[in-house]
Amino acid sequence: VTPAPDVEALVDSLRLTVADPSRVSTGESIIALHAGDYGYDASRLPDVVVFPLSAEEVSAVLTCATTSRVPVVPYGAGTSGEGKTIPLQGGISLDLSRMDQIVTVHPDDFDVVVQPGVLRHALNRGLAEHGLFFPVDPGADASLGGMASTNASGTTFRQGSMRNNVLALQVVLADGTIMRTGARARKTTAGYDLTSLFVGAEGTLGVITELTLRVYGIPEHVIAARAAFPDLRAAARAAVAISNGVPSVSRLEILDGPTIAIFNDHYGTELTEAPTLFLELAGSRGMLDEDIELIVGLGEEYATTGIHFERDRTAQHQLWAARHNFGNALMVRHPGRSATATDVCVPLSVLPDAIVHARDILRERDLDAALLGHAGDGNFHFVFMLDAGDPEEIAAYKRFYREIVEYALERGGTSTAEHGVGVSKIEFLVREHGDLMPSMCAIKRALDPENILNPGKIIPAQMLEPTSA
Amino acid sequence: VTPAPDVEALVDSLRLTVADPSRVSTGESIIALHAGDYGYDASRLPDVVVFPLSAEEVSAVLTCATTSRVPVVPYGAGTSGEGKTIPLQGGISLDLSRMDQIVTVHPDDFDVVVQPGVLRHALNRGLAEHGLFFPVDPGADASLGGMASTNASGTTFRQGSMRNNVLALQVVLADGTIMRTGARARKTTAGYDLTSLFVGAEGTLGVITELTLRVYGIPEHVIAARAAFPDLRAAARAAVAISNGVPSVSRLEILDGPTIAIFNDHYGTELTEAPTLFLELAGSRGMLDEDIELIVGLGEEYATTGIHFERDRTAQHQLWAARHNFGNALMVRHPGRSATATDVCVPLSVLPDAIVHARDILRERDLDAALLGHAGDGNFHFVFMLDAGDPEEIAAYKRFYREIVEYALERGGTSTAEHGVGVSKIEFLVREHGDLMPSMCAIKRALDPENILNPGKIIPAQMLEPTSA
Repeated sequence: VTPAPDVEALVDSLRLTVADPSRVSTGESIIALHAGDYGYDASRLPDVVVFPLSAEEVSAVLTCATTSRVPVVPYGAGTSGEGKTIPLQGGISLDLSRMDQIVTVHPDDFDVVVQPGVLRHALNRGLAEHGLFFPVDPGADASLGGMASTNASGTTFRQGSMRNNVLALQVVLADGTIMRTGARARKTTAGYDLTSLFVGAEGTLGVITELTLRVYGIPEHVIAARAAFPDLRAAARAAVAISNGVPSVSRLEILDGPTIAIFNDHYGTELTEAPTLFLELAGSRGMLDEDIELIVGLGEEYATTGIHFERDRTAQHQLWAARHNFGNALMVRHPGRSATATDVCVPLSVLPDAIVHARDILRERDLDAALLGHAGDGNFHFVFMLDAGDPEEIAAYKRFYREIVEYALERGGTSTAEHGVGVSKIEFLVREHGDLMPSMCAIKRALDPENILNPGKIIPAQMLEPTSA
Repeated sequence: VTPAPDVEALVDSLRLTVADPSRVSTGESIIALHAGDYGYDASRLPDVVVFPLSAEEVSAVLTCATTSRVPVVPYGAGTSGEGKTIPLQGGISLDLSRMDQIVTVHPDDFDVVVQPGVLRHALNRGLAEHGLFFPVDPGADASLGGMASTNASGTTFRQGSMRNNVLALQVVLADGTIMRTGARARKTTAGYDLTSLFVGAEGTLGVITELTLRVYGIPEHVIAARAAFPDLRAAARAAVAISNGVPSVSRLEILDGPTIAIFNDHYGTELTEAPTLFLELAGSRGMLDEDIELIVGLGEEYATTGIHFERDRTAQHQLWAARHNFGNALMVRHPGRSATATDVCVPLSVLPDAIVHARDILRERDLDAALLGHAGDGNFHFVFMLDAGDPEEIAAYKRFYREIVEYALERGGTSTAEHGVGVSKIEFLVREHGDLMPSMCAIKRALDPENILNPGKIIPAQMLEPTSA
């Protein structure tokens, strides 16, 4: 792809593709809003931002972009990192936020059809009327299209990641083809699983214009709990035992002493500044009664210094809101810095050693990072507040990430569980799956031969030599 | 692909690729055993059968096949239908049954690494020592590699299909590349999801040589139940309510009156010859106590004529063995005929109407078929005993299948939930996903440019025009 030589001509032709030309914008502030993300990667202005309202408009934009060989970067709520929504080569930022309708709720089928710009909180408000909820919870009020494109997950772990909960997609290919993958039926094996291919593809293979999602009944009873432990390893071992042995636990987070100290300081709480698990239990009364006993037993086995159960819904919401906003809290405390998190995931049995290993390196090098671990599925983040202008800080972060990736890969883990690859983790993808890169490139070329869709993300640019076209 | 002009030369070169030349066989009985499957599609002898013992040997065989442009059909336990393992153009049947080792069980991580030829019962025997089991249960003692390649599921439904339970794969591509997808970690979003792409690809994109599977703890308590209903619609509506409302129900099958009559006749049981649900509940004592009450309540709501709970494990095994062997029982009762099942899946709310609609057509046309429905996830089979030599019988079956597929597609369903496409369901795949076929073809060409891997399956041959090569 060569950048559009003539932005004005591009804008003119785009204005013919959408019903209302004002939805093709080159306004300075709108352009600026689509230039960066939450990470430390250098931002870049797009040439133009388009706000489509339908799959047909997306198709027309992509057809125009393919003809002009202009890059297109799909954009949702902008809550992502790793540079996934940065228009590295300018071109079109395709902002799907106005496709924000909940199309149909099917309560008896436990599914919902949504447009990609629907935000997570809005979806859950719409579902609540039907006694339903969508479990995947990355914390941020992300768009469902963006969450699918990143294969997001978060603090909930029993129902899996986005990929486990997307039944069907409408997708527009680079050449403008509008197509539908999957089915509303719970199972299908009709040909290759294109649904799972587009989920997690970060907009590099097609643009998601509609999603059919599995939803779940709001649980009868919910209890929150927190448990403190004398050391990090004990806390992590308790987490593994709880994840494996207590079925109603639906969230299971680990924070360590230094992280709890920041938490207390920011929220004015008075939690013991020790390694701590935050738990949520959800289910029937009978299940929870059984499982509280199990948790108390396991807590004792790992020498807990105190377990507190919280049955009040408001207090529960406060705890989880605090946990979910913690990344933002760090940003507020470090203005001008970029929140950047490692995203390693390891088999559960490896988690205690992996967390202790990582914290030991940080301590040794006097590096400041908060531990926010999704202990239920072996995924842990160390959140750094980086000065994007300081190459040494970034180098120290990357060195640390490289080391914990090596540690994880040797033990069956992965370099990224839920944040994706984008720009800044391409080196880890190549380290982890070098043997798969030719197949990934071949699939990219097969579906987007001109490489107009989010170029420079996931696949290293140099691996996509120009085709005969 | 043109068939090998010289089988002797092919066999000679294959004998150089494996450590023991006796594992390259042209013996008449071995060739004949790899010619057909359980369906009505015409069988075809392979030219040669190879029994590899390692990924390296598979790689050497595929390299040889690509060089000679000879088709390769991966073969597991041979328990499949739809023509998936029939070597339509001769060539190599690659029998993976001797790669039958359980490589490693990781009890704390709830995963297991297996070779593709491991059979389901053997896996569960190996896991039982650790208090674990693998839930996907298609009835037959299939190989895990075959189950993954078909994206099998079966009577269990809470843990999903194979795709939901395969964490990682070792795959050999047509060009001999050996590669590893996924991770042992519970979550990963490191690049495109190739794992899900190879699962359900029916050996057309690569040969699976190792699988990492999620496994589960053997439940504390298991109860079986059966409930009879006055009519089919009531039984199906009860099934939907139970699937949606009773979390511990792990199997939920529907059989109708005529099917129960055959069941009684074959097994000597004396079940009421009425529409009947077979259920399994699994969980803790507390959960089951709650859920039995729920089932009794729902049974009454749908006017059950009797619910029977069975707590004795031996009696439970007898019931489920009878259910799982029922397809075989039909074959024994109709020697010389081919058991062929429709495999439609619909959103749960559609299930009652869809089953009644289908049974009405059968009754109207006086067609004989047994209803075996996986009601928990909206998947239902009508099993026909076809005379493969009678074109009229096959035409009547196909006409019926076409009609129920149309009915399902109009309501969010799919033509195949778990049996796959093979040869005989290509017309349904094209009907269901015509818009996806260009992408599926592009992916097939990208990963298997010479079309040597199981040609003629999933993708219609005429859609794969020869490439420039």
